[in-house]
Order: sequence, then C-alpha cells, then structure tokens
Amino acid sequence: MKRLEMTEDEKVIKDPVHGYIYVHDPIIWNLMNTKEMQRLRRIRQLGAAYLAYPGGDHSRFAHSLGVYEVIRQIIGAFARNNYEWPHEYDRLTLIAGLLHDVGHAPFSHSLERFMTMRHEKWSVMVVRDPTTEVHEVLESVSPGFSELVAEVIEKTFPVPLIVAMVSGQLDADRLDYLMRDSVATGVDYGTFDLARIIRVMEPRKDRLVVRDSGIHTVEAYLLARYFMYWQVYFHPVSRAGEILLHTVLTRARQLVEKNELSALTPPALLAFLRGDVTLGDYLSLDDATLFAAFTVWRVSGDSILADLASRFLDRRLLKEVAWPKNRDSHLSAVQQLVKEVGYDPNYYCIVDETGTVYYDYYLGSDLVPTHENAIWLYRKSDDRLTEVSSVSRPIQAIAADHHPVRRLYVPREVFREARFQRLLEDEANGGR
Amino acid sequence: MKRLEMTEDEKVIKDPVHGYIYVHDPIIWNLMNTKEMQRLRRIRQLGAAYLAYPGGDHSRFAHSLGVYEVIRQIIGAFARNNYEWPHEYDRLTLIAGLLHDVGHAPFSHSLERFMTMRHEKWSVMVVRDPTTEVHEVLESVSPGFSELVAEVIEKTFPVPLIVAMVSGQLDADRLDYLMRDSVATGVDYGTFDLARIIRVMEPRKDRLVVRDSGIHTVEAYLLARYFMYWQVYFHPVSRAGEILLHTVLTRARQLVEKNELSALTPPALLAFLRGDVTLGDYLSLDDATLFAAFTVWRVSGDSILADLASRFLDRRLLKEVAWPKNRDSHLSAVQQLVKEVGYDPNYYCIVDETGTVYYDYYLGSDLVPTHENAIWLYRKSDDRLTEVSSVSRPIQAIAADHHPVRRLYVPREVFREARFQRLLEDEANGGR
Amino acid sequence: MKRLEMTEDEKVIKDPVHGYIYVHDPIIWNLMNTKEMQRLRRIRQLGAAYLAYPGGDHSRFAHSLGVYEVIRQIIGAFARNNYEWPHEYDRLTLIAGLLHDVGHAPFSHSLERFMTMRHEKWSVMVVRDPTTEVHEVLESVSPGFSELVAEVIEKTFPVPLIVAMVSGQLDADRLDYLMRDSVATGVDYGTFDLARIIRVMEPRKDRLVVRDSGIHTVEAYLLARYFMYWQVYFHPVSRAGEILLHTVLTRARQLVEKNELSALTPPALLAFLRGDVTLGDYLSLDDATLFAAFTVWRVSGDSILADLASRFLDRRLLKEVAWPKNRDSHLSAVQQLVKEVGYDPNYYCIVDETGTVYYDYYLGSDLVPTHENAIWLYRKSDDRLTEVSSVSRPIQAIAADHHPVRRLYVPREVFREARFQRLLEDEANGGR
Amino acid sequence: MKRLEMTEDEKVIKDPVHGYIYVHDPIIWNLMNTKEMQRLRRIRQLGAAYLAYPGGDHSRFAHSLGVYEVIRQIIGAFARNNYEWPHEYDRLTLIAGLLHDVGHAPFSHSLERFMTMRHEKWSVMVVRDPTTEVHEVLESVSPGFSELVAEVIEKTFPVPLIVAMVSGQLDADRLDYLMRDSVATGVDYGTFDLARIIRVMEPRKDRLVVRDSGIHTVEAYLLARYFMYWQVYFHPVSRAGEILLHTVLTRARQLVEKNELSALTPPALLAFLRGDVTLGDYLSLDDATLFAAFTVWRVSGDSILADLASRFLDRRLLKEVAWPKNRDSHLSAVQQLVKEVGYDPNYYCIVDETGTVYYDYYLGSDLVPTHENAIWLYRKSDDRLTEVSSVSRPIQAIAADHHPVRRLYVPREVFREARFQRLLEDEANGGR
Repeated sequence: MKRLEMTEDEKVIKDPVHGYIYVHDPIIWNLMNTKEMQRLRRIRQLGAAYLAYPGGDHSRFAHSLGVYEVIRQIIGAFARNNYEWPHEYDRLTLIAGLLHDVGHAPFSHSLERFMTMRHEKWSVMVVRDPTTEVHEVLESVSPGFSELVAEVIEKTFPVPLIVAMVSGQLDADRLDYLMRDSVATGVDYGTFDLARIIRVMEPRKDRLVVRDSGIHTVEAYLLARYFMYWQVYFHPVSRAGEILLHTVLTRARQLVEKNELSALTPPALLAFLRGDVTLGDYLSLDDATLFAAFTVWRVSGDSILADLASRFLDRRLLKEVAWPKNRDSHLSAVQQLVKEVGYDPNYYCIVDETGTVYYDYYLGSDLVPTHENAIWLYRKSDDRLTEVSSVSRPIQAIAADHHPVRRLYVPREVFREARFQRLLEDEANGGR
Repeated sequence: MKRLEMTEDEKVIKDPVHGYIYVHDPIIWNLMNTKEMQRLRRIRQLGAAYLAYPGGDHSRFAHSLGVYEVIRQIIGAFARNNYEWPHEYDRLTLIAGLLHDVGHAPFSHSLERFMTMRHEKWSVMVVRDPTTEVHEVLESVSPGFSELVAEVIEKTFPVPLIVAMVSGQLDADRLDYLMRDSVATGVDYGTFDLARIIRVMEPRKDRLVVRDSGIHTVEAYLLARYFMYWQVYFHPVSRAGEILLHTVLTRARQLVEKNELSALTPPALLAFLRGDVTLGDYLSLDDATLFAAFTVWRVSGDSILADLASRFLDRRLLKEVAWPKNRDSHLSAVQQLVKEVGYDPNYYCIVDETGTVYYDYYLGSDLVPTHENAIWLYRKSDDRLTEVSSVSRPIQAIAADHHPVRRLYVPREVFREARFQRLLEDEANGGR
Repeated sequence: MKRLEMTEDEKVIKDPVHGYIYVHDPIIWNLMNTKEMQRLRRIRQLGAAYLAYPGGDHSRFAHSLGVYEVIRQIIGAFARNNYEWPHEYDRLTLIAGLLHDVGHAPFSHSLERFMTMRHEKWSVMVVRDPTTEVHEVLESVSPGFSELVAEVIEKTFPVPLIVAMVSGQLDADRLDYLMRDSVATGVDYGTFDLARIIRVMEPRKDRLVVRDSGIHTVEAYLLARYFMYWQVYFHPVSRAGEILLHTVLTRARQLVEKNELSALTPPALLAFLRGDVTLGDYLSLDDATLFAAFTVWRVSGDSILADLASRFLDRRLLKEVAWPKNRDSHLSAVQQLVKEVGYDPNYYCIVDETGTVYYDYYLGSDLVPTHENAIWLYRKSDDRLTEVSSVSRPIQAIAADHHPVRRLYVPREVFREARFQRLLEDEANGGR
Repeated sequence: MKRLEMTEDEKVIKDPVHGYIYVHDPIIWNLMNTKEMQRLRRIRQLGAAYLAYPGGDHSRFAHSLGVYEVIRQIIGAFARNNYEWPHEYDRLTLIAGLLHDVGHAPFSHSLERFMTMRHEKWSVMVVRDPTTEVHEVLESVSPGFSELVAEVIEKTFPVPLIVAMVSGQLDADRLDYLMRDSVATGVDYGTFDLARIIRVMEPRKDRLVVRDSGIHTVEAYLLARYFMYWQVYFHPVSRAGEILLHTVLTRARQLVEKNELSALTPPALLAFLRGDVTLGDYLSLDDATLFAAFTVWRVSGDSILADLASRFLDRRLLKEVAWPKNRDSHLSAVQQLVKEVGYDPNYYCIVDETGTVYYDYYLGSDLVPTHENAIWLYRKSDDRLTEVSSVSRPIQAIAADHHPVRRLYVPREVFREARFQRLLEDEANGGR
C-alpha cells in the first residue's frame, strides 16, 4: 500500500459548483487520494442520464468533494455564529460526508435495483475493511476511528445532529447534488440559494432546524428538488437508459448462470452478476468495466445480449409512451405486437413506474412528521418548531404529489405499427 | 445497420455552454445518432486533465455538438446581415463542424503523440469509409456528399471560407472548446464574449475577418486561449497524467511486441498498440477500453506495467519540478537517483517540454502573416485589412511568447532525497 | 424637435440579462432615442426596493428594451417554426412592448396608489399626443400608426394574440422583469429557463398557449414570480420605503393645498401633487425630481414633512411587525403610544396589507378560468387545451394562496417601549 | 442627530457580485446607516457611462459595501493561513475601505475634472468633520479613531500594509469595482478569479505580495482592468456623456459668475459652481440635484445652457471621430464649420484625449518599480520578490501601452457636411 503523505498548507481544488474546495486537514487530503475514492472518478454521478443530457458526465468523485465542502461551510457558519454544535465531531462529520458514497456501484443509482445490497452498505464495508486504503487512513487518526465513520454513514451514531448533516431532509448530500447536477446538465431548475440555506440553518438541541425567516429559501430548495426529478432523474430518456442498462445486465446474468459468458467477461464482473462479489472485486468495477464488457458482448453469440449491449453503446433506446394503469389490459396485445415485430417482449416491452422509488416524500398525508423525516422551522420569539409543509402551500403541494408516472417502453418500430397507434388512440383517458 | 429516422420539428439538446443546441435538419439529427458519433460520449474532451480538475469529465460528443451550434449561430448572423456568404454550403459546413472530431482516439489529444496518424485523418476515414453509419447518412444527402465533407475536414475543399469556419485561427472549434473547458473545469479564464465575436465576424471575399471595432473582443478571445493553456492544458497535473498515460502504453507496446500481453488485452487494443489497427477496431476503442485494460494490467505479471497502470487509476502521478535546459547536465545524476530509489528511469524520469506541441503561435517573429494563419481586422472606412498582432500589444506579447516550459517528472520519493534537494538548490538560476 | 436619424445596420445594446439587445428597424431605434423613452433612464424599475437591495438601481429604460428583446425572440421562434402568427403585426407588437411603460411615474409602481391615473393610461397618452417625439416617430411609419400602438397597450386592439404578447399571464413584460429584477438584486429566485419558455410557446388560433411538454417550465416561471414577490416586491423594507414615499407625498399634498410649499417645489411637481398635471409637466418628473424636492423639503418649516423627507433620503424607515387582523383592536392603543413617543400617528403608524394589490392571482377559487387570465397547456395528440393549475399541484398551491400579509409600521423608538412589547406578547396567535 | 443602534447578530445584505455582504460589527452597521453613506445610493458608480450601458445604473453605495466585503474576505484568508498581519487594525481597515469613497461628488469621477478638490479629500473631510454622522460613529469607537481612518484614506497612516489594502495596485477598491462594473453593464471582460486572487495574496513584511503560483491570476486581473477601460470607462459614448456633463456645468458656471442663474438653481449647487461650497452643501449634492437642475435649465433663457442640458437629459450626445495629433492643423476649419452649422465651437467642438487621466500605468518605461506602484511576486523557495511585468509579457504589453486615444466630438449635423467628410478622407494616416 502506498505511503501516505501529509499536508500542512491549505490546499484547494477548483470546482464548477463551489468555486474552490478548501482542505486544511491532511487526513482528509489523504482520504481524497485513496484508491477507493479515486475510483469514484470513473463512476458517473447521474448514471444513464448522460444519455439525456450530454453535459451529465460529471463523476461521483466531484460530488463527494462537494458534500465535504458543503459540510465545511455549514460548520464554519455555525462556529461564526457561536451556535451550540459539537465541534469535537467536525472532522468525523466532514469525513463521513466525504466517504458516504465511496461504495457506489458503476453508474451510481442506475444499478441499484439490480444489486442485492445498497451502496451505503458497501460504503460502510469500505470504511471498516482492514484491507482498504480508506480504512488505513482512518485508523491513523486513532484506533477505532473508522468505526465511528461507519456509524455516521449507517445512521447508528448516537449524535443525531451529526447524522442529520450527512443524511437527512436537508443534508449536505442533497445540497450538493442538486446544484451539481443542475450546473453540469445545464438544467437551471436545480439551483437555489445555498449561501442563504447555510445561513438560516441552526442546530437546536438534537435537530438541524431552519430559522423561520428562511421559509422561502426552503421552499425554493424543495422545489428545486421537485424540478430536478422531473427534468433529469425521471426524464424519459434517463429512464430509458437505466432500463436498458438493467436489461443488458439481466440478460447477462441469465447467460452467466448458464455459464455462457465467462470467456468474454472479467472475473469481477462475473462475480457481480452472480451476486457473490467480494469487496476487492466490487472495487475494481466502474463505468468503464461495463462499457468494455458491452463492447465485447455486442459481438457475442447471444443475439439478444448483443443487440441490447449495442443499443446502450449506440444510444438506440426504447421509446416511451404514457401508460396509466387502465391501459394494462392492453399489455398482452402489445407484447404480442412486439413479438411480431421481432423482439422478445421480456426485454423489449417494459412498463416503468417512476416516482415511487427515487422520490422520498416529505410528509405523507397520513403520517405524523417525525424528527428525522421532516424539515423544521424554528421561531425564536416563542421558541416554537413547525414542520415546513404545514405553513407552506407549495411544499404541501409537492409533498402530497406522489402519483407515480407510468410509461411503456418498446422499440421504435412498434410505434410505426398502425395497430399500436389505434390502441393508443382508443384510450379516451390516456396520456400524461 | 439501423434504419435512420427523419425529424421534422426543431429539436433541441440542453447544453451547459450554449443553453440549447438547435437542430432543424434531419440529416444532422441522424448524424448525431450514428454509433460513430455516440462513441464520442465515451471519450473525455480534456484527456487526462480530469486528474487536475475534477469537473473536467465532459465528453468530446458535447464539444462536437457545440461546434455545430457555434457554426449555426455564425451562419445565422451572416444571413441576418446579408453578408456575402455561400449559403449553398451551410449544411456542408455544419456537418463538417459536427464530424471533424469523430476520429478522436481515447482521451482525445492525450494519446496523439502515441499514434502514427492524427485524429483528423481518422475523422476523414470515418467519413469516407462505406461501412460507417456516418458515411451512410452522408450519402443519403446525395451521392458523393461524404467526399465534400472529407475535403472540408482535411482542408482541401476549394472554398477557403468554409474551411476557415471549421479550422482556422478563429474557428468554431476553438470558440466552443475554450468556453466548454472553462465551464466544466470551473476555470473562469476561458470565457469571452462569444455573442460579440459572432457579431464582429464577417466574410470578406475568401476570408473570415473581424471588423475593427471588434479588436478588444479578439484580444479577449486570444488571451482566454493563453490562460486556458497555462491553467488547464499545460497544468503540471494534466501533463503528469498524460505522461503516465503515454508511459503505460509505451510499456504495454513493448510487452505486446514480445507477445506477452495478449491474453489480458482486447484484440482491438492489441492492434492499436501494434500500430496496425483497422478502422473497425479503432472505433471500438474509447476511454473505457483503456480503463478496463489498466484494471487488468494492474494485476499483471510485469511489475512495471502493473505499477504504472495502478498509478494512473489511483492517480499516484509523478511529481514535477522546473527543469530549464541548463539543468540537463544533472540529468544522469537524477536518473541514477531514481534507480537507487527503486524505479526504472526509462519510465519514471521524464523531461517534459510543453509549449511547442499544443500551442500554435499566431505570428512567429520571422513569419509574414499569411492568409490562413492570421486573424485579420477589417476597416470599412478605407477597406483595409490589418493583422491583429500589429495593432495590439497584448496579442503581440502572447504571439511572441513561445518559450516552452520544461519540467522534470519523477516519483515523489525522489523529492525526499537530500541529494535531489541539494541538486535543485545548487542551481542559482533554476526555476521559472 | 430633433431630426430623427435612420439606421441601416443591425445595432446592438449590451444588456446584463439578455446579453445583447438587437435592433434592425430604424423606427425602433428612433423610438429608443426619443426624450420620452430616455426619461425612463431616470426612473427606477423597482421603486423603493433599492432601499432593501443595494443592487436594485436598474432603470425602467433597461426593462423596456428587455421587453422589446423578449418579443423579438419569441416572434423569431414563431417564424422559425412556421407557426401561424400574424407577422404583419410584428413591428406593431415590438413597438407596443417597447412603449408600454413609457408613461410610468417616478419610482414606477411605488407612486401608483398616489396617482389618480394608472401608468398604462399615461403611456397611451404619450403615444397619442401629437406633441411627443414618440408620436412623431410612430406617425412617420404611416398616419394612424400611433393609434394602433395605443390600442395594443390599452388592450382594445382586435387581435388578441398581439395583446397577449404584451399584457397577459405569460407576456414579455413579466418574462423580462422577473429575470431583470433577479439579476440586479442578486436574488436568484427569479430566474427560470427563458429560452425554453420561448420554445414551448405557440400561437393557437387567438391564444398564446404552451405545449404540454412545457408544464414544468411554466411551473418554474410561476414559482419564480411567487418567490420574487415575497423576496423583493413584498419585502418588509421595500414596503417600508414605499410607505414612506407615500407618506411624504401625502403630507406635501396637504401643504400644497394650503399653498404652503410653492416656493420650494418645481411647478410640475406642484401640479402633480394637486392632481392637475399636464402631460408635458408629467414627463418632466422623474426620480430625481423627487429626490431633489426631498432635499429641499428636509430643511422646510413643516417639521413633519422635513422629518419624513429626511427619513427617506437617509433611509431611516419605519420598522414593521406582523399585524394580523385580530390585532386591530389594539390599534388605538398603539396610536396613543406613537403619539406619546412624539409622532403623529397619521404619518407614523401605518397598517400595510400586501398581497392584494400587486399579486394577480392565476385562478381564484370561485373563478372559471377565462381566455385571458389563465395559462393554457396544449396537447397535440388530442388537440386539447387545459388550464395549467388543474394539472399542477404547485401552481394550484400558489394560485389559491392569496392570504394578504398585514404589517404594522411604526418608528423604531416604539419598539423600545415595554408597553408595546407586552402588547405583542399578549397575543397568543400573533406572528408570522 | 439620530440615535444610533447596535446590532449583535450577523447581518447580511444581498449583493449581485459577492452573493452576500456579511456584517458582524455594530460600528460598521451603523456607519452603513449614516446619512453620508446613504447619500452614495444616489450617486452612480459609473458616472455618465449609464448612457453607453443601460445596465450601468449601480450606485457608489453598493461599491462601498463591496470594498468592505472584499477586505473582510482577504483578512479572513490571512487569519485562516496564520499569515503575519496586524489584526489589531482589522476594524480600522474595514472601515477605511467602507468610507474611502464617501466624499464622491455627483456622477463620481465624471465631475472630477470640474472640481478643485479630489474626492479623497472630501472623504477625509467627512471623516474628520465633527458635524457628520460618520464622525460621530467613528468617535464612539474611541476618541481619535476618526483621525486614524482619515490617515488610512489619505495614505499617511504609518502601517503600509493597511494603506495598501485600501489603495494600491491590487487593492480591495479595484477588486470590487472591476467585478461590479462588469456584472452591472453585462460586459464580461471585467471578471477574474477573485477567490484565487485572495488566496494567493500574502502580507510579507510591509507589502501585500502575490505568491508566484498566482502569476496568471494577476495577469487576468490586470487584463480585466485593461479591457474594462476600453470597453466601459473610455467607451466613446461614456466619454461623450462626461464631456457633455462638463460642458453643461462650465456654461452654468459662467452664467453663475454673471449672476444669471441664481433663481433657477439650488443654493448648494450655486456654491458648488462658484467653487466655494461648504461640506454641508456638498453633501446635499447628488446625481438627482444635477438632473433636477438640468430639468430647470432646459427651459432657461440661455439658449446654449438650455440646449446642452436638454442634450444630456435626452441623450443627444456629440458624435466622435478619431482625431490624432496630426489632424490638429484642421481644427480651426472644423471650428468654423461648427459655427456655420449653428453652434458655438467653445461648447460643441471638443478634442478629448483619454488614456492619460484615468489609466495608471503599472510601470513606465523609464521608471524603477517602487514599493507602492508595483505588484510583487513572491517566490518561497528563494524568498525573492519580482515585479510582475518583468516576468509576464502580457503585463509588460499593457504597462507600456500608454498611447492616449484622441477623439473629436462635434454635433451630428457636422458629419453630414461634405466639407467635413472630405477633410477626414484627405487624411492619409487618419483613424484609430
């Protein structure tokens, strides 16, 4: 393992979102330079959304630095205002923010449905495993330090404020990714007033609250999130890319299980597909592994795999149409049509429901807002906490708006079939 | 080959630099969707500079769309002002701009010194080769159209104005990449007033000239270029990445020549390393191919290759020190030192001279400005053309400033050696 | 009257919002150079809001150019897409947009409540009056042209599309001012995707509609409007400035009616205060007239006028506290307190209700959406128009949210009184 | 005088350049609220340049806050890096930066040539005069504190570092105004990397130096300055406005000396024109005073004054043509022509030389760089200071480029005269 170096001076890294990322702590500098963190340079932050937005090639590495920087700014503001914040945990919080995504799979969230274990679990494993460079650097702080970091990431650390800073309704993670995804794609909707959000945040006992003068800033932040979901994360083309990614890997898994793909696939990816991957193998996977495998698979003997892999590389995606539940009665007819056009409907006729998986609601209609799943406004004059959606109609509107969107994805040729067009037109209440 | 589709409506693509990229021509839309163009999504515009700037992950695909869009805007301005421009070549120009980079190798310019044929040659080959989708779409315009496109890219097309728009001192290529690289990295220096550059450009007979009121806009553009070279393209870390990339491939080539790497390397990459790659193989290479090969090589039996590949993936770059020519007498001592520290100086002791290869001078001191290699100011009142550096001291300054910078790159451990430090201190006039 | 000049070339004006404003039509160039338009350079776009936002000094002149530019871009997009738009009215529309605010009083909307005639009426008068330069330029197009412009501005022109472009729920006026006020103040909330709004707009028969794919863009636009109202236009300090402006003029009017201020006040302002101002006098009034009068009045014999004028110039505004209706029973006690502290409550104890005057609701709860007061989504597949709030919960939320905010403004000294503080605390349900 | 208030919490002011301006010190908050500082809200930062750039209406108040904020950021960076900086003078430096422009006349620099005393002298007078609110607040810090502030502004304070922060080649004043003027006008050339400039600045003994890694950042800053001079401050229309302003006041002064303007002009302005203005009178003057006077003068009996005042209000400026020294032999012919067209050449035929007054050169060819008039690069490795232009060709280029531009301004009618056109054409070597 490489010798780790220490820094003394303030270091900076240029960043398109925050201008500069400032590092004073040599431990943090060394963590950034571990191979596990450097791997994140080869994993796209937005998964397959780069197929919808040519600017969306930014990496999870840049985002991880951004999370660190946002925490640094928030903690700095707390110190400047003499808020009651447990500054003895500053380094721990900064590090947990920096590392919380270190376990991401290739294409970030795009593969999450394919995996048996969520990325946070992998992050925690990287932190705890004694063979990683990350673990080594962490333990150089003090024996057992890595365990504290793991606890913050898995939300079992006993100081709720620290956990909330890394994973909560108004955490550094979201504050960074909304801004970053917005800047990279050029979709302006995700920007909000980060400096002011930081200014109105305040630790009150064991909660991160927002002073009531910041209500409109919180509204703007939550609406930015709403817009980014619809413009980017749930964009029909982003989804088409993710569906295709999922289908390629599903087909590959089936072939692997029949031992048909071994010669063409690196061992680590084989293990990943079989579901028995080791940490070491897992950490050798990145976007490039998949792209390179797809390049091999596109000339493989299995015509379905070859076609699917080519489609992803060449961006020949399936095409979508709105598919509300009441259309499901026509599904078998469509499957038949897909087959007639020459495709196996198991891979080429996909109903996709978005809105339920990626979007976490701020407050369900029948839920009591709890400590963790709500954003709280704090009014100094009478020392009262109020949940934000109860005083903001726009927030209430998007909190309750959890109607998932259903779309059907099929090859473009299907759209050229008169029968398919008729079927869509027959639907009186179809659409959006 | 896939069926190509036609579009009727205006299409747009969101872009972080130009806001939107507008497409009206179905031929252009189809070209964007060819697999050869889609491959550029997997090639970083800035090569290894993403190791210096975490935001520098943007693709050559996005840049190619940008070049198209800049040409579209310039041609639009010419039409609006009734300038004498051969509008019968509009489609040709737009397409040549879109396609001029389609032949780029992985990591764009970073591998150029390693290759025997420049990327423009490959671009022309993609355009002309009857097996490519690009060629098929071009020929659908009219038989022989692909040949015209090839001629514009290789600068043999007989209408100089059309060639100048795609490759010249003030072409759409540079106008886009300076802005784009600047926005992506967050390095502000590359921005300039694109709208005004477009406004002051004018076709005069067979030259693209700039009206004299635009002198300061041209100054700002050329200085943006100067700054981007020093801040990004010649950045010591960008160069360290490119050097490492070059060294890994050099080592790999040596092993390939000894037939030692075949099992671990995809055939297309083997052919590339051997220098006898076919167009089909070449087009299957992208950044991912190299990353995936490095992941395999890092556990290969050749310890030098394994170390170099690991270093690139984990960003453990060589470290630089200024190395003016007068230090060359000490070079063999340093090589000895590198060896003693445990490294083969052939791979771990590299003198790098930048400034000569990538930077094209606007006007060498002993050169007469020619038609093509100069930017010309046009004064309406007396119908006179003047070369810009003759009326602008800042431009003159950077045109003449072709002192290359020399740097020595060695492993960090060497810097810890007292003998190395003494050697550097002995130099009275060392350093920049 | 000055000789008007004609332009042939495209002219541009640099603009912080749109980059450049492009002018091809010499009539429009000449209109911009009339003295009535130039007067708008001396009238603040945001009235007294510059007291809340030091960047808010931009002029109504810049906004008027911006409205023109937005119309120019929209019409250009319509032409590019071959939409059915009455292009024979292009010049008329552009001119009506440019001139619609030419009748604004000093400090724009801040004085509107003080005036007997709204600014649109004055704009129409400037257009029609044969003594103005604006009228002269308009009539040089063709006799009677000024009348058409006046009709568009006063919404009686028989082509609804033309009127909607200048004054509607999604008109060029709003599209410009939200962006401009946002950029100038630095309050980011007002920005939205103008290029995309323009792209999804479409003339359908006699309505300007939005294609249904643009639903989120419209949401973002309307929410930008919502945020700008709360962050800028209804900001407590903006309102405090407007209240003070109103109070100074009210006091001045009373003195004028008693003939006490004549020596210190320019005749045009006297006439304005008396309510019998001629057009010529009115057009000699600008922000400077009031500032200069206040400078004189601050040393006048009337101590109330002197104090109020000083307060405005020196920004010693009244201070606000939330004042819901149920606090009105305490109002006389507060007035008494104000008097005891030494101020006349008629001028120094003001209840301000905002939300009703400046904010136009998109859809009142009991209203049927009409042609003009709604934004319509158009779905091509079934040629259907839908009012936007019926398909967007966030829009519905802000459309219905017309609870005005009530605030009480009194001198700061009152807040130091224990009785006042007790009174506020007594209120169980006071606040926000 | 009003009771001053104290603040305890951090206050912020929204700003289009710096995002937010942060204030912790109640003394500084109170200074911002003095009437002398509030007056700067009514003085345009860019003088008459708003006639060239419709966005250039921003005030000297906003700039003064910006200077304060830049100093705050620089001092913060010094503290974070433990540089040797006399932090006991932090408050003094911040206050001197905030107040250094408090003595500006209407239209800022535009009137400077008309005045007998420069604005810095007036600023110092405001600070020292016991009748000002500024003085009162300063003395509340400690008796004699105002004197220290005055010394920093007039550069006699014995700590050079403190003086250099407020007035030097790389001071907070320039860092703010270049950015601010650039943002407001929309002229991008003035932006540079402020965060990085701050990062590479370092106090070394009694100088503010720049670490040598910051050479390109300094280049970009100085070139931004170069561009802003040519694009904004020396813009022909900006100069035309300033010339007209100067001419109106010159004519007015002549009439005042003949006692002809008294009835139409406020006493303070009369005193200003006569050159015997008191501080109190001076502080009652702002842009509005002049606009209001011009509005009166435009209908005065003196036809020259009336025309000149109208021209300024209505922006009917004189028109310029390049006028190199060798054309001066034709000047009397032009004056004769101006007279024939109906204008008095004393007011309507002005030769303007720019470049000598506003642009301070970094290093004259025959000057030894001194402590104060140079920017110094610091190299840590050998502890050496180098003057920047000696290592940067672009800086050298603009440092030496002090050829002033000469322009002739005459009424537009003159350009329509054939004799004038012939005269211009006769000049073989005329033009820029």
